[in-house]
Amino acid sequence: MFHKILIANRGEIAVRIIRACKELGIRSVAVYSEADRDCMHTRLADESVCIGPASSTLSYLNIAAIMAAAELTDAQAIHPGFGFLAENAEFADIVNESGLVWIGPTPESMRIMGDKVTAKKKMALAGVPLVPGSDGAVKDIEEARAIAKQSGFPLIIKASAGGGGRGMKVVHSEASFSNAFSMCKAEAGAAFGDDTVFIEKFLVEPRHIEVQVLGDTHGNIVHLYERECSMQRNNQKVLEEAPSPSLDAETREKICAAGLAAAKAVDYVGAGTIEFLMNADNSFYFMEMNTRIQVEHPVTEWITGVDLIEWQIRVANGEKLAFKQEDLKIKGHAIECRINAEHPFKFTPSPGTVELYHAPGGRSVRVDSHLYTGYKIPPHYDSMIGKIITHARDREKCIRRMQRAIDELVVLGVTTNQELHQRLLANPGFQKGEFNIHFLEKWLKQMSL
Amino acid sequence: MFHKILIANRGEIAVRIIRACKELGIRSVAVYSEADRDCMHTRLADESVCIGPASSTLSYLNIAAIMAAAELTDAQAIHPGFGFLAENAEFADIVNESGLVWIGPTPESMRIMGDKVTAKKKMALAGVPLVPGSDGAVKDIEEARAIAKQSGFPLIIKASAGGGGRGMKVVHSEASFSNAFSMCKAEAGAAFGDDTVFIEKFLVEPRHIEVQVLGDTHGNIVHLYERECSMQRNNQKVLEEAPSPSLDAETREKICAAGLAAAKAVDYVGAGTIEFLMNADNSFYFMEMNTRIQVEHPVTEWITGVDLIEWQIRVANGEKLAFKQEDLKIKGHAIECRINAEHPFKFTPSPGTVELYHAPGGRSVRVDSHLYTGYKIPPHYDSMIGKIITHARDREKCIRRMQRAIDELVVLGVTTNQELHQRLLANPGFQKGEFNIHFLEKWLKQMSL
Repeated sequence: MFHKILIANRGEIAVRIIRACKELGIRSVAVYSEADRDCMHTRLADESVCIGPASSTLSYLNIAAIMAAAELTDAQAIHPGFGFLAENAEFADIVNESGLVWIGPTPESMRIMGDKVTAKKKMALAGVPLVPGSDGAVKDIEEARAIAKQSGFPLIIKASAGGGGRGMKVVHSEASFSNAFSMCKAEAGAAFGDDTVFIEKFLVEPRHIEVQVLGDTHGNIVHLYERECSMQRNNQKVLEEAPSPSLDAETREKICAAGLAAAKAVDYVGAGTIEFLMNADNSFYFMEMNTRIQVEHPVTEWITGVDLIEWQIRVANGEKLAFKQEDLKIKGHAIECRINAEHPFKFTPSPGTVELYHAPGGRSVRVDSHLYTGYKIPPHYDSMIGKIITHARDREKCIRRMQRAIDELVVLGVTTNQELHQRLLANPGFQKGEFNIHFLEKWLKQMSL
Repeated sequence: MFHKILIANRGEIAVRIIRACKELGIRSVAVYSEADRDCMHTRLADESVCIGPASSTLSYLNIAAIMAAAELTDAQAIHPGFGFLAENAEFADIVNESGLVWIGPTPESMRIMGDKVTAKKKMALAGVPLVPGSDGAVKDIEEARAIAKQSGFPLIIKASAGGGGRGMKVVHSEASFSNAFSMCKAEAGAAFGDDTVFIEKFLVEPRHIEVQVLGDTHGNIVHLYERECSMQRNNQKVLEEAPSPSLDAETREKICAAGLAAAKAVDYVGAGTIEFLMNADNSFYFMEMNTRIQVEHPVTEWITGVDLIEWQIRVANGEKLAFKQEDLKIKGHAIECRINAEHPFKFTPSPGTVELYHAPGGRSVRVDSHLYTGYKIPPHYDSMIGKIITHARDREKCIRRMQRAIDELVVLGVTTNQELHQRLLANPGFQKGEFNIHFLEKWLKQMSL
């Protein structure tokens, strides 16, 4: 096993990885920006190295400084956590070429999955469902009609040069299709100087379901079931759970098999996540693969009993997975609430000094956080300051456990989204498990009326 | 289900029970002494009632005041926790006679198990192994010799009127037996005015192994495997684990069957524990039954997945156990460290104000505590201020997880036994699982040399 690992990250996920190192008997090296001198990860690690000023570009994204820290401390491997350099294949290459071990997938699979067009082609070949539509540019109205017929309505016509909501048109029926197609093409030409358009099936109220996978370097890959991550705002997940409350056994088997097929298509090594969008009729489509550990990994750890960070490290060390697909069964239900230093309804960030921090405790409550009483949350980074995870034999009990855990949390001195979670957990739609990716934003809008 | 439960206890166990109530949707009533006005259980409960001054006799042992609080708040049931009135059959009678529900076993089984002579008779009838020796007073040297022959050496001769180490003599061989018997009898007569003596087999280096049981009011009783509690000082448990590292499958089956037989012999209802002493040759003997929840119940909860406090409440509500013996399997390993406000090696109590409290976090770490930053630990009660419990797939990993969790704990302002745990967890004898009830005291003596 490695004697020392450098963690190229900060805050909560760095603390998570340092804990895993301690439990494996591996020494840990923290890196930190000048703004993070007192951040908990620098205190928990065996060694800490300052890698630059507060700006991420100059510190946590500063490959030269991180490599120098690894050399200085004689670290054997680098864990990138999530965010920052975690999905940077060039960084992975540099780590490998320096004779260190990259705790993550091969740069090749990172590159394939990092490019949307390549990834979709690969997925199509592997039989993973993609959003129906044109494979690329649509030449004329005849081709458009043929695609529309195959995909069905509603459809979305997208200008190739558009983006961020511009150059898009949703069409709900065949009657208005030809007209909309012509208009969109003309508008695209006028607005972007390029009238290339694509057509995709428009998913009205999809859910975000993702599948956790884990592979070793010996060709073994397993899935660890799905996570329900539809509770989002601005594409940011707020609350995640496993398993999804909305899947029947058959759909679960199908989507997990699709996730596994996606991972196998790129000979995936380490922990990764395949994100899908799912319609109300349980049809689902590949969105993207995240070639790293995710924020919400603890819910999967709890329902499967597998320590994902430990296995990322073991797999990077060349070990074989100690379990097979048939050994992995879903045990109970787990929910994660992301605690952010921000206004619970206005979402304005709230950096500052934590006057008092008191974590919830008791049975089947897990707290992953870098907070402590007296900690000064710097304004430079993500607003997430911790995660509370609960587990129980069923979803109903899990929700009640989370309610009492969230109620127990005390963070004074900065504003957090604690009240958002309290209200959300009490919401009948959430409690029934009947929600899609628009649920939270609609509900927030209603509340503000 | 009950709408409201009164918790006739304080501190950590009161917090534990209040949390269970919250998770069951039951309102909770805390009672507190004047010294406990700011204790966490009074803050977490839905209602709190002061029941008297600091002295336990006038508050937590004050039956009239507790019953008045229950009446005042319209509580339907009373949970006694452990210690204080938990094994007081008279209190259980009063609760029942007042039309409230006693969350615990029947007063009858409490009475049987509360009286050592009656309990031993009952256990003998049920075929539960008892320490070999005289059934009661030994008349003369002839009878004594016959018992000695049957039981084998070493033996212990105990004055009936003695206690607390006085009036006892350990005899290691037949050669010195007659002389020792006569001396002990004469000394007992001189010291206590009563020369009645008993003879029991002397267990040289036994382990303390206890079996958790749970029964409902429909005649179903299960065991939840054993706990290893040999790590003791002055008969006070310091660190407990489940399962025991020293049992093979056959011995486990035998001792759990004996525990189950003991519980069935008294038609046991609720959660209870049968304590055994076990020799190096795996022979074991009934010591006593505790007719209440125990401090160390979380290790059992973790390896079985059963919430014992929840089931105490459900059973008291007349519900049937939702699982059978064959559903209960041991999953992994769990360890509990008791955190006491006392000097780690001198064991002098250390009440006072907690200047800073920071609980450990992360995967598979549970913290049951009533501590908070600013809390003033009163000098009147038990020194236990919390419990840290870890779980892992095997004992080795569980120990390492506990080591990192104990290291993360911060309690400033009062002295705790944190360092005792740190040293104990690193001790090779502990790590190998090779220890008996004298291990800790011997080790402490060696350290102080």
